[in-house]
Amino acid sequence: MKLCIQDAVDLAYGAGLLGTGGGGSPWIGQLALQQLLATGASVDVIDAMSLSDSATVATVAMIGAPTVMTEKLMRGDEMRLALELLEQVLDRPVDALMPVEIGGLNSTIALVAAGTLGLPVVDADGMGRAFPEVQMVTFGIAGVSAAPMVLVNEHGDHVLVQSVDNQRMERLARSVCDAMGGVAHAASYVMTGAEVKAHAIHGTLRMAIGLGRCAREARAQGGDVLQAIRDYLAGTGIYGGSTLLFEGRIADLDREVQAGFNIGTARLENNTGQVMEVLFRNENLLARVGGQVRAIVPDLICILDSESGAPITTDGLRYGQRVTVLGIGAPAALLTQKALAVVGPAGFGLQASYQPLAVDAIPPQPSDTRS
Amino acid sequence: MKLCIQDAVDLAYGAGLLGTGGGGSPWIGQLALQQLLATGASVDVIDAMSLSDSATVATVAMIGAPTVMTEKLMRGDEMRLALELLEQVLDRPVDALMPVEIGGLNSTIALVAAGTLGLPVVDADGMGRAFPEVQMVTFGIAGVSAAPMVLVNEHGDHVLVQSVDNQRMERLARSVCDAMGGVAHAASYVMTGAEVKAHAIHGTLRMAIGLGRCAREARAQGGDVLQAIRDYLAGTGIYGGSTLLFEGRIADLDREVQAGFNIGTARLENNTGQVMEVLFRNENLLARVGGQVRAIVPDLICILDSESGAPITTDGLRYGQRVTVLGIGAPAALLTQKALAVVGPAGFGLQASYQPLAVDAIPPQPSDTRS
Repeated sequence: MKLCIQDAVDLAYGAGLLGTGGGGSPWIGQLALQQLLATGASVDVIDAMSLSDSATVATVAMIGAPTVMTEKLMRGDEMRLALELLEQVLDRPVDALMPVEIGGLNSTIALVAAGTLGLPVVDADGMGRAFPEVQMVTFGIAGVSAAPMVLVNEHGDHVLVQSVDNQRMERLARSVCDAMGGVAHAASYVMTGAEVKAHAIHGTLRMAIGLGRCAREARAQGGDVLQAIRDYLAGTGIYGGSTLLFEGRIADLDREVQAGFNIGTARLENNTGQVMEVLFRNENLLARVGGQVRAIVPDLICILDSESGAPITTDGLRYGQRVTVLGIGAPAALLTQKALAVVGPAGFGLQASYQPLAVDAIPPQPSDTRS
Repeated sequence: MKLCIQDAVDLAYGAGLLGTGGGGSPWIGQLALQQLLATGASVDVIDAMSLSDSATVATVAMIGAPTVMTEKLMRGDEMRLALELLEQVLDRPVDALMPVEIGGLNSTIALVAAGTLGLPVVDADGMGRAFPEVQMVTFGIAGVSAAPMVLVNEHGDHVLVQSVDNQRMERLARSVCDAMGGVAHAASYVMTGAEVKAHAIHGTLRMAIGLGRCAREARAQGGDVLQAIRDYLAGTGIYGGSTLLFEGRIADLDREVQAGFNIGTARLENNTGQVMEVLFRNENLLARVGGQVRAIVPDLICILDSESGAPITTDGLRYGQRVTVLGIGAPAALLTQKALAVVGPAGFGLQASYQPLAVDAIPPQPSDTRS
């Protein structure tokens, strides 16, 4: 599938929603992808199952605090440099790229890098959403090493990180990213085609584009955007059900860039005076009302602008905004015991234990709603 | 010159004194070197001028907070791994090692690594003392790049850092070191023999050993250790003159490990109630009495135990210790305008400007006091 400019717009919406507040601003990614496509570059998305088992696939991402990603301009050739260095270390060429996460800026970053380098992008990722840390991916959970990882900044400074432990990879990469000014372009998790087939979450790139298209069409037809999204997601087969968690205004916002993350709490209040607190660390982690957990990682907690239906990143939250909070059940691969230890509440140092999202019954949709 | 076990003991003294409080505990280095020599390993120290102009010389050092270097045991093969990786990156073998600094643990680290790997050690360093940061070396000041730098920790995690800017190399290396647990083994500043000849401070390794021997002999003969040291240093031709800055007790000590450094202030009081403050960041930076600067970087501020004459590192300072503070004029290479911008007060963010140490007249010594 060759991407068109409309796909870039639709992807920004889908990636914004699935970013659950993090993954960097999808609008920045949209601009970069639109600009690339406008030059006539071709961006080719391929199925994971079409990879040869021995193909070399590298995942790419920007890491750092989303606020910094929005504020600091890229130089443009960071990812090209990162991949050149990675190929030097591997001593073999990379055959395809894959986004490490579908959420936020990072799905687009993979597409832009691939289009620039003439490589295909695998239609898959390691989360089906966004997460803040290196080890929080399905392939990492399955035992694939994040090393070697190459990090590059806008000065062309570059760092190669190697550890047998993905948690230590995270710690090393995070502090390099911090020293690089809060954000870095990263290439890592080099996998064979066979590993991608076995451990990635398939189809998420086309799915995110389809999600954006479905929201756009619903809006154009004056339909219920939220319901359209929920119906679409139910038909993907990737996620659990969804539920409307809250509608209200942002009454209080406590947010800072700390140790390379956007960390904070948003306090929402509805017309009846009920209050929902949403804790976030780049991504939204936990939503509770009156001390009762309503949704918790790895389930997706998505905050949308109530009027436009547009997803809002944690650094885009503003006092007084009218917002709708949508809960989406996590992909099954994130709900195993092994996965929950990494991407569940314990992986984020939260005291609460995981409890599956209480979802509304949604009738299964015919598969033709899927892109 | 082949080192003997007595040299290891003497070097620990000399390196401890020239470390001006930093560079890591020389006693740890002494133990490692003694152990190596006891196995029959040969450690060969060669003159810088004997290098071929095209030889490849790498400098090695441990970086991090001295306190952590003392508390955290090495695995033993960190530097071997660092050099293997460096050679891979360079795609050529390293012919000789050189200590990045003569002070503290770091002169011995070079000797131990060289003895283990069967490489010679160049009798030179980049400071004639110890400094806390990557860019603070004569070769860096002369324009030699610190990149590529390889950092290794006790888990075998390794990081390759590349930047065209030595100050950014410092920031990147420091945060990697922090994420590695506060200390890392580093190989960097790869130079040709010609560069070493032109930019290093020559003869400092033998000089440090000679300094230790001279202190030991003075002590054995019941002589004045301090005077013996000062006479010896005057004869080296490397340093400016010296002066006794203060004698007193440590009355107050404010010290913490912060951002990978030992940072703090020691307050000394003498019998007449006069107070000297010594500010340090790994190394002693500034000594003042009643707000008047008595000595400031890059001049050497050495704190010795008044009874034994043993040098005390900044993490070895203890409340109530009777200490003697010796000032030594910095090597000329550190006193150019270009050097002072890096290793003078401004390089450390101190408000004071550099003022040369007021030294006592010491008659020049015959050169045979030099090793």
